[in-house]
Amino acid sequence: MTLYLDHNATTAIDDRVLEAMMPYLKEDYGNASSRHDAGTRARKALNLAREQVAALVGVQPVQVVFGSGGTEANNMFVKGMAAYLKPSQIAVSAIEHPCVLKPAKSLARMGWKVRNLGVDATGVLDLADVDDAFRTATGLVSVMLANNETGVLQPVAEVADRARAIGAWMHTDAVQCVGKLPVDFELLGVHAMTLSAHKIYGPKGAGALIVDKRLPVKPLIDGGGHEGGLRSGTENVPAIVGFGAACELAASRMTVQAERTSGLRKVIEDGLVAHGATIFGSRAQRIPNTTYFAFEHIDGESLVIELNKSGIAAASGSACSSTSSEPSTTLLAMGVPPELAHGAVRLSLGVENTTQDVIEFLEVVAEVVSRLRRMIAVAI
Amino acid sequence: MTLYLDHNATTAIDDRVLEAMMPYLKEDYGNASSRHDAGTRARKALNLAREQVAALVGVQPVQVVFGSGGTEANNMFVKGMAAYLKPSQIAVSAIEHPCVLKPAKSLARMGWKVRNLGVDATGVLDLADVDDAFRTATGLVSVMLANNETGVLQPVAEVADRARAIGAWMHTDAVQCVGKLPVDFELLGVHAMTLSAHKIYGPKGAGALIVDKRLPVKPLIDGGGHEGGLRSGTENVPAIVGFGAACELAASRMTVQAERTSGLRKVIEDGLVAHGATIFGSRAQRIPNTTYFAFEHIDGESLVIELNKSGIAAASGSACSSTSSEPSTTLLAMGVPPELAHGAVRLSLGVENTTQDVIEFLEVVAEVVSRLRRMIAVAI
Repeated sequence: MTLYLDHNATTAIDDRVLEAMMPYLKEDYGNASSRHDAGTRARKALNLAREQVAALVGVQPVQVVFGSGGTEANNMFVKGMAAYLKPSQIAVSAIEHPCVLKPAKSLARMGWKVRNLGVDATGVLDLADVDDAFRTATGLVSVMLANNETGVLQPVAEVADRARAIGAWMHTDAVQCVGKLPVDFELLGVHAMTLSAHKIYGPKGAGALIVDKRLPVKPLIDGGGHEGGLRSGTENVPAIVGFGAACELAASRMTVQAERTSGLRKVIEDGLVAHGATIFGSRAQRIPNTTYFAFEHIDGESLVIELNKSGIAAASGSACSSTSSEPSTTLLAMGVPPELAHGAVRLSLGVENTTQDVIEFLEVVAEVVSRLRRMIAVAI
Repeated sequence: MTLYLDHNATTAIDDRVLEAMMPYLKEDYGNASSRHDAGTRARKALNLAREQVAALVGVQPVQVVFGSGGTEANNMFVKGMAAYLKPSQIAVSAIEHPCVLKPAKSLARMGWKVRNLGVDATGVLDLADVDDAFRTATGLVSVMLANNETGVLQPVAEVADRARAIGAWMHTDAVQCVGKLPVDFELLGVHAMTLSAHKIYGPKGAGALIVDKRLPVKPLIDGGGHEGGLRSGTENVPAIVGFGAACELAASRMTVQAERTSGLRKVIEDGLVAHGATIFGSRAQRIPNTTYFAFEHIDGESLVIELNKSGIAAASGSACSSTSSEPSTTLLAMGVPPELAHGAVRLSLGVENTTQDVIEFLEVVAEVVSRLRRMIAVAI
């Protein structure tokens, strides 16, 4: 039996979410664009899901553009806006997910200038650097709501204020924050926001770009004109239904879960610090489920492999960049020395984790770390 | 109970396919990029699915680039190749799906010229027009393998020969043909091919672009570097597993089903003709399950609505353009008069349809058509 502590990578589909999906994986398989009853049932299911997703972030259903996931939504904002605007500067935090950083870089060949916005040692965006960046004409801005590795919350509302003041379009990747803490599109003042289902106990294969109605975004994926012409392709009805159900579920239990996981994390971090670990971003406000730490001289990847042998699923950096063995760009941007950054391990708690899990983790990590330290001592 | 005759719009997930998917919707929910056991299980499942999809069209697994569906794959070819090449001409058949036609049109602002290739009255691409088009320098070509409305097969191998001779990159949208008739990537001689799971008793939310290894396609969706860097985003493991299972199932029953549905279609078409219908594309070679017909003076949409009231699911034109009431561009390209094209109704048979279904359909359509004719007579 695995002790799963990698909920920022993906979550299990909640039983109630899967139950909501099952009719659409079985008898109600119609194409939502079809004009017969099978199509109508699919269309109605999409409408309900659109309401559920919209409600979680306080927008109108018409502002929800469904797609295949968070990566697609981030690409859609960056590339879809660049296709409309005259090239200028795109400003993105230095700690964005690669699915914002790479699309931003890809705009260079269209004449765009990419400006990375720095973060301080606690992992929080540096607003003075934002002010500096905005002295150059800027068309697009993207700053994530919570970092996927450290969990550190970013001052998105403050950046959005500044972006509006200079007439730039402001986007936030809210994938790691939604479902963990309350998120309100209007209060943040952004023009676009990315959501993903599989991080909040919904299925893989569904996400959304939430858009301000005036956003002049061009579709990344053209065709039959689905999603108000902004995202074509037969709607993945079961996954979207699951996304909607997951949003409703998240709203109903978010407060309780935030308190609970934050309590568990405190126990974990106290234990890790007692064993000599450094916790990254712990001085900043964070989503309640994430802890990112390192032990000096212990390679993060080796630690993850050893934890896995003991039945514990953790991550070294984010899953999305796990094919690379470079140290985390997020940590380097925070000024963490590369040797220590190489030791980074992320734990992300979820609804099924218990106090017993936390105790088990701390016992295992103590044993593994002391074993790895002995091996290093012998090697020296 | 619905009599479903709209399999070109979408199909039910086969029970065996859903059974293959269920573990990945439940306990094996890991992120395929994660380095713990949960991730490894997901990764292995993807590998198997990649082999199953590759086998159906005779390619190596490494040539399969998974994405969210056929529309995305078509966009990926058109936009992803245009991002690499110098602008020249893109030649597409006049009867392509909107998810090829619209991306092609979108290239105009990058300096590309779009050339529509004509079809003859039987619905088959006119090779003389291809030769004419190729007198102009052409970088990209896309011709579908079977038309989604008429079911008419297109001379893709012949076009691919000509495209290679002039150094153009050749793509085929094989979504409506794969699983119904044998398809071999190498024999067709194309550089890229689009597949979709939900048309072959697999789930919505999975498709693939099959690529020649030398194809210099740029990713449409950038990020964590999944799918060999060609399509980022957390893999939709359950849907991809279902796609693989659906491909294996299709291979195992294709021959039998092709004969069976082609026999059922003959009964339907004999009956429709006896009632005075025109069958579009019936003089050409077609996929075995599709019939596209019209009764003079009877509006296709009204007929579909009346059939639906009697529990029969059919389509007027394709589901993807069903929000529009314009006559089918495919029929107009074939030279069908607009008044008759307005009458078009598509039936597409599937594995669960029986002789009894066909008899029931013919009884209902006879009754409905005669009723609609009486209404028209009264109105006049």
